Amino acid sequence: MPRLRVALAQTNPVVGDLSGNARRILDATVAAHAAGADLLVTGEMALSGYPIEDLASRPSFLAASRRAVEELARELDARGLGSLAVIVGHPDGPFEPRALGSSNAPTAIAQNCASVLQGGTVVARYAKHHLPNYSVFDEYRVFIPGDELLVLRIGGVDAAVIVCEDLWRDGGPVGRVLESDAGVLLVLNASPFERDKDEVRLPLVTRRATETDTIVAYVNIVGGQDDLVFDGDSVVVDGSGRILARAPQFDEHLLIVDVDADEAGDHPAPAGVHRVELPASESRDRSPLPTDIATLPDDREQLWNALVTGLRDYVDKNGFRSVTLGLSGGIDSAVCAAIAVDALGPDRVYGVSMPSKYSSEHSRSDADLLAAATGIHYSVEPIADLVHPVESQLALDGVAAENLQARIRGVILMGLSNMHGHLVLTTGNKTELAVGYSTIYGDSVGGFAPIKDVPKLLVWELARWRNDHARTRGETPPIPVGSIEKPPSAELRPDQTDQDSLPPYELLDAILEHYISQLLGKDDIVALGYDRETVEFVTGLVDRAEWKRRQGAIGPKISAIAFGRDRRLPITYRPTD
Amino acid sequence: MPRLRVALAQTNPVVGDLSGNARRILDATVAAHAAGADLLVTGEMALSGYPIEDLASRPSFLAASRRAVEELARELDARGLGSLAVIVGHPDGPFEPRALGSSNAPTAIAQNCASVLQGGTVVARYAKHHLPNYSVFDEYRVFIPGDELLVLRIGGVDAAVIVCEDLWRDGGPVGRVLESDAGVLLVLNASPFERDKDEVRLPLVTRRATETDTIVAYVNIVGGQDDLVFDGDSVVVDGSGRILARAPQFDEHLLIVDVDADEAGDHPAPAGVHRVELPASESRDRSPLPTDIATLPDDREQLWNALVTGLRDYVDKNGFRSVTLGLSGGIDSAVCAAIAVDALGPDRVYGVSMPSKYSSEHSRSDADLLAAATGIHYSVEPIADLVHPVESQLALDGVAAENLQARIRGVILMGLSNMHGHLVLTTGNKTELAVGYSTIYGDSVGGFAPIKDVPKLLVWELARWRNDHARTRGETPPIPVGSIEKPPSAELRPDQTDQDSLPPYELLDAILEHYISQLLGKDDIVALGYDRETVEFVTGLVDRAEWKRRQGAIGPKISAIAFGRDRRLPITYRPTD
Repeated sequence: MPRLRVALAQTNPVVGDLSGNARRILDATVAAHAAGADLLVTGEMALSGYPIEDLASRPSFLAASRRAVEELARELDARGLGSLAVIVGHPDGPFEPRALGSSNAPTAIAQNCASVLQGGTVVARYAKHHLPNYSVFDEYRVFIPGDELLVLRIGGVDAAVIVCEDLWRDGGPVGRVLESDAGVLLVLNASPFERDKDEVRLPLVTRRATETDTIVAYVNIVGGQDDLVFDGDSVVVDGSGRILARAPQFDEHLLIVDVDADEAGDHPAPAGVHRVELPASESRDRSPLPTDIATLPDDREQLWNALVTGLRDYVDKNGFRSVTLGLSGGIDSAVCAAIAVDALGPDRVYGVSMPSKYSSEHSRSDADLLAAATGIHYSVEPIADLVHPVESQLALDGVAAENLQARIRGVILMGLSNMHGHLVLTTGNKTELAVGYSTIYGDSVGGFAPIKDVPKLLVWELARWRNDHARTRGETPPIPVGSIEKPPSAELRPDQTDQDSLPPYELLDAILEHYISQLLGKDDIVALGYDRETVEFVTGLVDRAEWKRRQGAIGPKISAIAFGRDRRLPITYRPTD
Repeated sequence: MPRLRVALAQTNPVVGDLSGNARRILDATVAAHAAGADLLVTGEMALSGYPIEDLASRPSFLAASRRAVEELARELDARGLGSLAVIVGHPDGPFEPRALGSSNAPTAIAQNCASVLQGGTVVARYAKHHLPNYSVFDEYRVFIPGDELLVLRIGGVDAAVIVCEDLWRDGGPVGRVLESDAGVLLVLNASPFERDKDEVRLPLVTRRATETDTIVAYVNIVGGQDDLVFDGDSVVVDGSGRILARAPQFDEHLLIVDVDADEAGDHPAPAGVHRVELPASESRDRSPLPTDIATLPDDREQLWNALVTGLRDYVDKNGFRSVTLGLSGGIDSAVCAAIAVDALGPDRVYGVSMPSKYSSEHSRSDADLLAAATGIHYSVEPIADLVHPVESQLALDGVAAENLQARIRGVILMGLSNMHGHLVLTTGNKTELAVGYSTIYGDSVGGFAPIKDVPKLLVWELARWRNDHARTRGETPPIPVGSIEKPPSAELRPDQTDQDSLPPYELLDAILEHYISQLLGKDDIVALGYDRETVEFVTGLVDRAEWKRRQGAIGPKISAIAFGRDRRLPITYRPTD
């Protein structure tokens, strides 16, 4: 039974940064070559970053991507790594567009490809067959599907190559893997983190491995890209379903593993399969490798790490040196500050307390405590003298006067951002965004929303987890107990609490889960035993807040249906169901 | 040769308003019945509104739509109109979902249907075959394609039924129309307005009519829905390419026309064609009809009407009584005010002049003149006393101090909106949004952006056209000459003009057209003869402003690639091409 040494390069690409992403792959190849690998596989689109969205419709971007692949092949060869087969994910084109429809708009001219580089050139290319076009994915919009499986005959083994969604669907490439009797299945992925997704993904990989009796090498990219966080968690599973190797979540990693695969037979390649014979790598090595099997942390730690990664990469990839956020003393801003500190370190975080005449003493002191516990930069900007002239000139009262306070705070944070180059973080949670319980151009101000996809109850849960996590490591818990324990309040009028205007959060989050994530209608939710008046009140708030959400900052997706491109609904809409 | 009297109901639906939309169809049917029609056809999704986006993934919405179709059939019968065949567009489902992919997200469970109502029931149903998934359309995301053509045998004629995109593609339904030897082709459409689209749409309808030797009855919906404006322009073209009838743009209209079609043969229906025999309408009438052929106005008038319709319907469908906007004395706010007056009448428009210490005398007087010429409500709120306390407390200067002025204006408009219920209009044009030449949470504040898709040069052109149009009708030109003639300026510092920071608008708009609409890369544009430094400066501004555009208000699409769902690009992005 031939043994193949496979390297999985779990890299963190930046969309569009072809040369930087190529360097990451080059570095991984240097290490894989030194470790005697037979081949190296990257994640999906590791050369361009993912998702590239409508960049796929720009011929010059596709041409640049193709050049970058060819340059990478030449560079690998020039560095003496040319004998190692490197399978790299990238967009390719431009190809003849699909038939035009009823608009002058562009249509798909690209393919989502995996190219095999060896000896300084591209020796084979696979194009993704199944194009996901649901959830956050718009691949049918921008890509043309491929129609042929690629099989690499290397070191006496047949290794099939597919891309991401191809693994999930029964027809097409997976069927051909079985027909072609491949011993190894290499899968390039860009699979975003989603809570509990590992409970779907690993079983799928395992099922495909046993079904097709192949060793499946599943390579995922890692890192934050706008609202998506790729969690890595690359894994190799053999035909009996055993995990041979597993990379950690959220970090770049080079996973190298020996696989003992069935010897390739001498049958011809079946129809729809392109088979390519590759010379063995000069670097081949059979000395034993240490076992490399990461374990997944628990649910809360995974979530926390996803939020930290999403923020860190947004900040760093967009070249911000620092972030600023308003500290109200409440739970949301405290959790956002703790995430920012874990992502960037305290020296890159600037907290601003902006008390009004309605701010309670404990709010100010909880903000102080947070700043002290985390060591972030901290300043206090009282708003009374800024609010009063506007309130008085315009004769504002009621909700208009309440919103004014939030808007003056937004003006302050943006002023500080303009002066010092900070990215402003907006601290709204998913529950608040769902029901529109925020002031647009006020507390919604900011370029990134760290807990945008975290419902209120989960905000509390994560806060408690983070403090416990600190305690178990002998560190200071970052989040003041007062911020966790006290009743939540916007503090825009005397003695206000959230429950003056909203149902209790236990009830609210449950209804929102049914309406938003489960896609139930009002009657469906009432049929589950909820009070009709409450259900209609909550769903009405959700429907009417769509215009605000459209103007909101992006933030990391951690659920099956996040606000944003995951949930596309009209603003102009008369609900009937 | 049998004669068929066909009614095309060009209605203005509201998304989700099943009962209101049904009433519009019912009213049209009453009129069509009285006029002796043999059948009535609505636009695509006229019962639900279009696009319904992810509402198509909510089973309860689909169930409500199906009930609404059945209720409409019963109601028509109860009113004595049951003998008239009514073909109505609506979503249908839920159906068995397509195979699930790599996420827990929902996938398509709906079809985009045309149902035939007669005798109180649904007697036949067609499902759209070709699903557009480019430009603003996400139909492959939410719909399952149909696979059978519907042919109605009525009054001795075979009338085929298809939906929108089906007409544009060569394969599938159009091929079967030819095979089935139909005499009439009924097409239900929801085709948004786009500049010069009539130069594509009418030739297509004509080509299909002559190719298939059928009389094509093309019914489009009308009206604004969020960022789309459906222009109607329903048309009937015979097999020789002659226009038999044409409805006006942008208005609801019932177009009734007699068509002399080939008699249906006695051949069996070909494979993939479902043929249904319908009894003739009791209302049949053969007395002659007046000719009803609307003429299209010129390009500028079409554009203006699209902008007016987009704003009017956003305001009215969302239940706003009034709008407010800042009047700077500049061209953008003047054009927005003129559009608002044409859409809503002056009594629903509230202009606010918010002069600063940098505002010129002519700015204030041009704002005064506009208010006087249009008769809108008008107030003046100087900002100096509101800006100063913030500037001083935070020690803001430079760009931070400039932006502060714009943000205080945003605070004022939102305060007035909160007090009086006005919708705030934001007056930025497409050029400004492209290069990020605006203050986020400042002049970008608002729920709707009337000229969001209008480049600066076109703003001037439309302003001149609107004034000329007034003059030719003996009315007062709404837009002050000063607003059109003076050099554009943000007036955030002394003697500032836009050209301090930006290339001349002739050059800027040309480069933007290449970069945004033509999807050219930087090198491509330089190759056309533009200065490299200017091209890189402009495209760099465009790339870096993506985060601002994502938080911007929606506004009516009038070009092939508008900002919004037409152009989906990452925020985090290192440009290379």
